[in-house]
Amino acid sequence: EDRFVSNPDEYAAALGQVSAGDTITLANGEWRDFEIVITGQGSADAPITLAAETPGEVVLTGQSNLRIGGQHIIVSGLVFRDGFSPTGEVISFRRDSEDLARNSRVTQTVIDHFSKPDRNETDYWVGIYGQDNRFDHNHLVGKTNRGVTLAVRLNTEGSRENNHSIDHNYFGPRPNLGSNGGETLRIGTSHFAEFDSNTLVENNVFDRCSGEVEIISVKAGGNTVRGNLFLRSRGALTLRHGDGNLVERNVFIGDGEDHTGGIRVINRRQTVQDNYMEGLRGNGFASALTVMNGVPNSPANRYVEVQYAQILRNTIIDSDRITFGAGADEERSAAPSDSYFYSNLLGGREEGTFLEVDADISGIAFAGNAVVSGQLHSALDAVRRVDTAMERGGNGLLYPVDPSLAAVGAPRDLRVMSLDEVGVDWYPKPGAQEPFGTGRAIEVEMSGTALIDAIADAHDGDTLQLSPGHYVVDRIIPISRSLTITGESDTILTFVRPTLFEMREGGRLRLEDLTIDGAEADDASGNAVIRTASIPIRGNLQIELERVVVRNLDVNRDFDVIYFGKSTLADRVDIRDSIFENISGAVVSAASEYDDQGQYNIEYLDIQDSIVRNVTGSAAEVYRGGRDESTFGPHVNIAGSIFENVGSGSRSSIDLHGAQRTMIGQNAFVSSAPIGITHTVGTPVTAITRNTFAATPGPELTELNYAGEPRVEMSENLTTEISAQ
Amino acid sequence: EDRFVSNPDEYAAALGQVSAGDTITLANGEWRDFEIVITGQGSADAPITLAAETPGEVVLTGQSNLRIGGQHIIVSGLVFRDGFSPTGEVISFRRDSEDLARNSRVTQTVIDHFSKPDRNETDYWVGIYGQDNRFDHNHLVGKTNRGVTLAVRLNTEGSRENNHSIDHNYFGPRPNLGSNGGETLRIGTSHFAEFDSNTLVENNVFDRCSGEVEIISVKAGGNTVRGNLFLRSRGALTLRHGDGNLVERNVFIGDGEDHTGGIRVINRRQTVQDNYMEGLRGNGFASALTVMNGVPNSPANRYVEVQYAQILRNTIIDSDRITFGAGADEERSAAPSDSYFYSNLLGGREEGTFLEVDADISGIAFAGNAVVSGQLHSALDAVRRVDTAMERGGNGLLYPVDPSLAAVGAPRDLRVMSLDEVGVDWYPKPGAQEPFGTGRAIEVEMSGTALIDAIADAHDGDTLQLSPGHYVVDRIIPISRSLTITGESDTILTFVRPTLFEMREGGRLRLEDLTIDGAEADDASGNAVIRTASIPIRGNLQIELERVVVRNLDVNRDFDVIYFGKSTLADRVDIRDSIFENISGAVVSAASEYDDQGQYNIEYLDIQDSIVRNVTGSAAEVYRGGRDESTFGPHVNIAGSIFENVGSGSRSSIDLHGAQRTMIGQNAFVSSAPIGITHTVGTPVTAITRNTFAATPGPELTELNYAGEPRVEMSENLTTEISAQ
Ligand SMILES: [Ca+2]
Ligand SMILES: [Ca+2]
Repeated sequence: EDRFVSNPDEYAAALGQVSAGDTITLANGEWRDFEIVITGQGSADAPITLAAETPGEVVLTGQSNLRIGGQHIIVSGLVFRDGFSPTGEVISFRRDSEDLARNSRVTQTVIDHFSKPDRNETDYWVGIYGQDNRFDHNHLVGKTNRGVTLAVRLNTEGSRENNHSIDHNYFGPRPNLGSNGGETLRIGTSHFAEFDSNTLVENNVFDRCSGEVEIISVKAGGNTVRGNLFLRSRGALTLRHGDGNLVERNVFIGDGEDHTGGIRVINRRQTVQDNYMEGLRGNGFASALTVMNGVPNSPANRYVEVQYAQILRNTIIDSDRITFGAGADEERSAAPSDSYFYSNLLGGREEGTFLEVDADISGIAFAGNAVVSGQLHSALDAVRRVDTAMERGGNGLLYPVDPSLAAVGAPRDLRVMSLDEVGVDWYPKPGAQEPFGTGRAIEVEMSGTALIDAIADAHDGDTLQLSPGHYVVDRIIPISRSLTITGESDTILTFVRPTLFEMREGGRLRLEDLTIDGAEADDASGNAVIRTASIPIRGNLQIELERVVVRNLDVNRDFDVIYFGKSTLADRVDIRDSIFENISGAVVSAASEYDDQGQYNIEYLDIQDSIVRNVTGSAAEVYRGGRDESTFGPHVNIAGSIFENVGSGSRSSIDLHGAQRTMIGQNAFVSSAPIGITHTVGTPVTAITRNTFAATPGPELTELNYAGEPRVEMSENLTTEISAQ
Repeated sequence: EDRFVSNPDEYAAALGQVSAGDTITLANGEWRDFEIVITGQGSADAPITLAAETPGEVVLTGQSNLRIGGQHIIVSGLVFRDGFSPTGEVISFRRDSEDLARNSRVTQTVIDHFSKPDRNETDYWVGIYGQDNRFDHNHLVGKTNRGVTLAVRLNTEGSRENNHSIDHNYFGPRPNLGSNGGETLRIGTSHFAEFDSNTLVENNVFDRCSGEVEIISVKAGGNTVRGNLFLRSRGALTLRHGDGNLVERNVFIGDGEDHTGGIRVINRRQTVQDNYMEGLRGNGFASALTVMNGVPNSPANRYVEVQYAQILRNTIIDSDRITFGAGADEERSAAPSDSYFYSNLLGGREEGTFLEVDADISGIAFAGNAVVSGQLHSALDAVRRVDTAMERGGNGLLYPVDPSLAAVGAPRDLRVMSLDEVGVDWYPKPGAQEPFGTGRAIEVEMSGTALIDAIADAHDGDTLQLSPGHYVVDRIIPISRSLTITGESDTILTFVRPTLFEMREGGRLRLEDLTIDGAEADDASGNAVIRTASIPIRGNLQIELERVVVRNLDVNRDFDVIYFGKSTLADRVDIRDSIFENISGAVVSAASEYDDQGQYNIEYLDIQDSIVRNVTGSAAEVYRGGRDESTFGPHVNIAGSIFENVGSGSRSSIDLHGAQRTMIGQNAFVSSAPIGITHTVGTPVTAITRNTFAATPGPELTELNYAGEPRVEMSENLTTEISAQ
């Protein structure tokens, strides 16, 4: 029977009468605040179906979700958008802890930016419980809050050895979370690491799934990950817990993006074969291939040593790093054993060591491999080097021209998933995004009111061109779009409130050729020219300043140029050719994640060719505390700039705590506080080179969790007094 | 001409044509997002009037405000409600920095809870600029964000020696801000401290204006504060800067509330006469009367020494403290000089020293005073003690029966303002508020869904009575009303999300006779049973737990019972007869104001007769950082409780930083981390008495800004090992 329903009451009535073979059809339109529960006893021949009148035309908004109990249930054609789940899951393959779904399927369903407003509040978009369920041809894009996008749960016996299939889904862009909990797919948890899941993850596309270091986190045994395409995704497919997993015929395309990785191997009896990696730029735990050291006699939920690993016939080309024995330290002292690394085709880049060895590799047998380019660690001297041209096959992947290498590397018949084979064909897959300068150019006449009105009316990508003159702004301007504001040399903005621009959800701001003067700002402490709203922002922010002068931020204490509050993350802040003068706070304050959970406020900070003078706080304060290792940033690059009398009221002229990549080069520090660098977790890379320190103490370097000398490259710096000459 | 307008466009047209003698009448109804500007050249005989069609029926909501330029403008009858100003002021006596109001008046106008959502974002509700303006018969209630309620600005020459009158206004309850910037009225600022304002503040009522230590902050010279009534207001009328102010015939009624104060005298030629204070409980800077020490040769904006003060014929009765030479320290070493303290009638309470002397008082002449009760500092031994009954006069104030004292103390004809003489008669003045148990009693059947539905439907003051049984709650329950939730001995709540109750705007929560178990909560760090929403909350919160058991908050790290986030303040947290067991975080975490601006998360914390066992964090962590002295709290009282194995993962079992009043008494600490007390600013009062420390180190006491031994009373504590017996 087909039961057509138009509202939740009709739905409840229909559900009360549904039996095997029936279909409940939801009327097209918006269903707001609708928590769908479906359960019943379908059968293989006569399932119970919940369908959209037209796939894609039934839109669940507001506080909505879906729970599936019973067996042989099929749900299809829904869209979740413009809201978030009031519970811990959007789609749940269980009605409650007793009624788990079995032999059920969700297909042709979209979850689009259906994220909780607070990026730190956790949920799953999909929780799969029970057994023999299928999640296929779905489209999941834009999860911006903490928590795995899709979790296979093993928390009850009825959910183990489950034979679920997750296939032909489009896992679209998941932005950097800046915290643990940004995995796109997780199977199991450390609590149930000793159980087999026996889940199949096949023929999906992971497009820019860059939430954290783990794209997929496998935390159970017996799973197969096959035939998937990973596109420009930061992090790696990680075999974190569980034995006997099979990872084969996957394709990883990094396109040269930072931190794009491949596969990380931990535990026993893992097989990694016939995979293809190209253009990956990750290293450390996000290498193209990482074989970890383990903890001796580790419990299942720590780091089980690698044993009986079979790593066969993979191609890794144009990539930065393969690491054997990664993570070796006093605790992780158990090297891989009884393992095989055979017939892999390997091509690295010229910079750095391509094949890295961090521990004893005598337990790995190497044979039949070929290296076409890249430097090798001395322990791998014996690996065969070959000189062959590469050419693209019909599948678009690179293969050696030399016929003697035909059996080395990924197979010729490797199939690369295309975007139109996954997800649904009635919902667009997101393309690339350029935030600035893509919209209209709008001229703004010289008045604060005109500026405020123009910003209120602007669209994403628009550029506001301010005439020369003096603009007085009497209110805080909210920025909730991608906007460029440009002036000319005589364009001056003053403001009377504590803040000029407040970054909100969706906000990206680029300022060019402006002078901003803080002398008229509210006489209160803690002002800022640009700050985040005092509510969490789930979308990542971006701020660019070029040829901007900021001056006289000194009406009261702690007046910053840019301030990031708690639960906000900037993808990047770029400052070029700008001048900052007479400031009582910091130029960039990105230090609000004080509770040491591993979060931070900024991913990439770049200051170049600028002058920072008479600043009481730090030119940059960046803080990532705690010992979490799930993230790649912050990255800081400060170059070609002058810092004079900076940090007089602070410990440091530049204060970096927990940054992972730092380059401070070719700057002059004059009569300033020292640079302060504190390393916390991970393997931070820090270089301080070719700077001049005039009447300025040398950098203060601290290692919190590493016993040796501070791991900082210091070279070609000049220390001097100020010369009167 | 009378111009009647119904919308902003009609208003703009009318304003364009207005001339002296005209009235613009706003139609009754809601005017949303309306920024009113009125200016024009009225005259004394023919003012320009902006009036409501019916006083009180024109309601400005959303992002609205009012700016007045020109001269001889009268505005009356408006209500600002359900919104906040988009700029820095709601009512501004200037159109812009050029066009200041003169001879203009705002009357019969209401501003009711028209506060910015973020309590830390500053604004003024009323900014008076220009000269010869009057602000009278207005009603201002419920400012909850930072910034003075009414500010008289002297920032341009055209605003000085202004002869403004602020009279017959009702300044209603302003809750404790927990930060500087909670003054109800301020005249001038430290930047313009050397100028005279010549403002009259007369016949107003200040009802529960308890934002901070200054109810009124006078920061300019030549003002008169006369005939006002201060009701149950924390803090004091403070003559902070400026000379030659007159404070007379004011009445302060404290009703025994904490920190209710009177008048604080700084600077030269201040006259304080014929005032009446009764039932005040303030001390320190909020004493019934405070005469400060100054800084030698102080600039006008520091602490100018007291000279030529005349303090005459005041009555101070049933009050805690009068302090001479307050604030004396190395910097404030200039004692009062050339001053007079004559004919005052003084009656203190039995506890503590009523007349306190903290510095040399030889520069103050004492004569004609009479003390009816209270202890005197030895330097004031010579003040006459009298034994007289007191009786209430026709004005309700106390006078001595003894006829020989007729000339001592406040005059018989002192007039006490009544509430119906101030503000408007068409808008109710708020009464007392009891948050809990004033509404319906609602029985809730045993299911998580029923509980969630009942809370969604409840009203302020309701009590939800839960049947015995096990409730599983699958979502975060928002608390945005005053609610009591009671159970019976077998009522158990578990929850699967990171939080059970989330406190939001307007939330107060009392739990009774419940067991809350965290074992099923989300496996993530930083959970809490009760936490604040991750957005600022402007209203002060309140939480009470009585006979509540909380257990198994240990699925992950840092799982707290109660957690307060940034920009939230609890008026009080009361915990009685409760049990907390197996907890990985803190019982009460009120330590999110980490940026040392003087804010804090809790005013009164009271834990009594409870058991705290196996808690990794602290039983209580309270943090107030920085050196600001504008506030009275936090106050902490912990008594009659047992702490066993508390603080194993923390520095302290109880961690108090910057608390101002602390009493830890009659507790037992067993196998726990030490108590940690850090004193920052002010004169903190801390007592740790009659506790037992078994296998627990003694308290760790730190003074950050005080050179002597830690100012902690430690007495009758017992330190012991654990006895097997
Ligand atoms: Ca992770
Ligand atoms: Ca103050």
